[in-house]
Amino acid sequence: MNEADTQWMSLALEIAERGAGYVSPNPMVGCVIVSAEGEKIGQGIHERYGQAHAEKNAVDSVSNSELLDGATVYVTLEPCAHHGNTPPCCELLAELPIDRVVVAMEDPTPKVAGKGIQYLRNHNIEVEVGVLKEEAEKLNEFFLHHQRWGRPFVTLKIAQTLDGYIAAPDGDSEWISGQHSRSLVHEWRSRYDAVMVGRNTTLLDNPRLTVRHVEGRQPKRIVIDGPLELPDELNLFTDQYEEKTIVLTHNQKKYREEADPMLNMLKSDYFRGTTLLVDEKDGHTDLGDALKELGKLPVTSVLVEAGQSLASALLRENLVDKVECFIAPKMLGGGARSVLGVGINHMSEIMEFREVEWKQVGDDLLFSGYF
Amino acid sequence: MNEADTQWMSLALEIAERGAGYVSPNPMVGCVIVSAEGEKIGQGIHERYGQAHAEKNAVDSVSNSELLDGATVYVTLEPCAHHGNTPPCCELLAELPIDRVVVAMEDPTPKVAGKGIQYLRNHNIEVEVGVLKEEAEKLNEFFLHHQRWGRPFVTLKIAQTLDGYIAAPDGDSEWISGQHSRSLVHEWRSRYDAVMVGRNTTLLDNPRLTVRHVEGRQPKRIVIDGPLELPDELNLFTDQYEEKTIVLTHNQKKYREEADPMLNMLKSDYFRGTTLLVDEKDGHTDLGDALKELGKLPVTSVLVEAGQSLASALLRENLVDKVECFIAPKMLGGGARSVLGVGINHMSEIMEFREVEWKQVGDDLLFSGYF
Repeated sequence: MNEADTQWMSLALEIAERGAGYVSPNPMVGCVIVSAEGEKIGQGIHERYGQAHAEKNAVDSVSNSELLDGATVYVTLEPCAHHGNTPPCCELLAELPIDRVVVAMEDPTPKVAGKGIQYLRNHNIEVEVGVLKEEAEKLNEFFLHHQRWGRPFVTLKIAQTLDGYIAAPDGDSEWISGQHSRSLVHEWRSRYDAVMVGRNTTLLDNPRLTVRHVEGRQPKRIVIDGPLELPDELNLFTDQYEEKTIVLTHNQKKYREEADPMLNMLKSDYFRGTTLLVDEKDGHTDLGDALKELGKLPVTSVLVEAGQSLASALLRENLVDKVECFIAPKMLGGGARSVLGVGINHMSEIMEFREVEWKQVGDDLLFSGYF
Repeated sequence: MNEADTQWMSLALEIAERGAGYVSPNPMVGCVIVSAEGEKIGQGIHERYGQAHAEKNAVDSVSNSELLDGATVYVTLEPCAHHGNTPPCCELLAELPIDRVVVAMEDPTPKVAGKGIQYLRNHNIEVEVGVLKEEAEKLNEFFLHHQRWGRPFVTLKIAQTLDGYIAAPDGDSEWISGQHSRSLVHEWRSRYDAVMVGRNTTLLDNPRLTVRHVEGRQPKRIVIDGPLELPDELNLFTDQYEEKTIVLTHNQKKYREEADPMLNMLKSDYFRGTTLLVDEKDGHTDLGDALKELGKLPVTSVLVEAGQSLASALLRENLVDKVECFIAPKMLGGGARSVLGVGINHMSEIMEFREVEWKQVGDDLLFSGYF
């Protein structure tokens, strides 16, 4: 690994991120091509799911193909080795007069898993693997988590007062965090596959969970409605993004009577979203099973914007991977708590975060930490 | 105001702070003397209550008194004009062959209040007032608060988890914050006149409230014990700093039977601290009256290290001036909350902080804000 390699890979990672939200369930990938003289001659990213891969876009961007002679290709993920929506990138690269391919990390997908790298080496191209590997893994943490565990990466978002309250005693929760914080949440919504809420929040706030304050892709919207009794007229079931709504229920009877896809379609004004039947656990929706079912769709990442009840249940079941908590410089001294009832009794069981970051966002502070 | 003035006053403020804790109930004062040629020829601070003032120490530090000819004296507070423990500083300065005195702020004490400045001007010394005034006011915010309101400046210290808990459900509160945070609290103890706790914390934790992890002056220790029923053997009533303990009660009967200073002295093993009788309000100790009585002692500043009950009561009564809140990167999801029950019902009543600061302390975050 040399300084130039790190620099070009860093650029490839930076541009890759522009595909956030749009390429899922694929990983974000960036590619930079550098001539034998050390000049950048092309770059490209995977822009949208189902469209061309980063390598193809980068190669197409090279205006003078003579410069490819002896060039180096930097790519943030191992070039694919299988025929999917596009032909294998390793074959595309092997046909070029390039000398060297630098790869940040292997693709863990079983269909690739080293085969792309092997293919290039078999065609006499020098391949270096592992340049900015950690950064590349961070960039695609949702994808990697989903690949490994079969369920989505779950981030719990909290917006609370200094003393840990998310609503005043009268139930009002608008607005504890400031405008900058709320805009940032909209940006996150555009990067996560889905936003999740529980019954109470859906009933109380009738949220839309759309991306509004910023440009970006609209997310899927997941409602945990165990008894399947939320009223039909709520925003999530009627607005222009109705098809992006996924309802999770454990009520077998109601699901079979009303929400089974076949029955649902027969109705005059049927729900155009998805209803999934998942397991029940102690009278509640089994959240572990819910995430497993979401993983199969596939949903690779979920931003939970729930209230106390669902947030605490997810924490209790160890299903939260990351917490993003806005702390407003205010105190309520009462009302709904951000988290209550996770089954901890002794100090020795305290949940500790790792990779903690604190950041000022407007007047608020943003805490980020992983479990 | 010129750059040199700001620079020398800044030094005077910096050295003044070394008297923190030791000079109370006097303000901290620093003094720097600069020759006509612009060289520093002396400096001094008010080091301990009852000892020499900053001006006297600064003048005494000048080795060659000829250099005083045409010199400028920088002092963070108006020189005193009255005979207290020491002769008036304005007279001391007026006798010197100096040209100019630069003062950061007037002394609001009725006995001074501009008289020191007037005295100097009457003796043909040029006086400039207001250089780094805000910084000087900040330095002595405890003193100024006490001068103005007659009660101590009250800082509420909280050490909580991200989700706002100060103890696990089983009652254990050791240790939520880290070692760095705890050391910083000991430093604060040495700067505040007194540390305050309630009945519950005193019974549960049997605290000492002394300065241990750092060098510094030991504070007074205030216990709010409304019914006057705490056991005699607790650390605060028996350790080597027993005389620094102040118990506040509203139980007139018990106070007259047991704790009145005259009766107390007759006992074989009498309590060498102070017991104060204060008003009752709705069956509890009237905290406003308690602070008024403390102000008379005088106690100019109180660091409250209380649990949920006393902390919330002080907030409810609007008696907290500043909050210092350590947030540990941990979650408990249950247990005692930092604040509960301050009488807020609607979002419009939310308590907002001003002059907010966020600071990393070890692994914890420290929030500071004023009401």
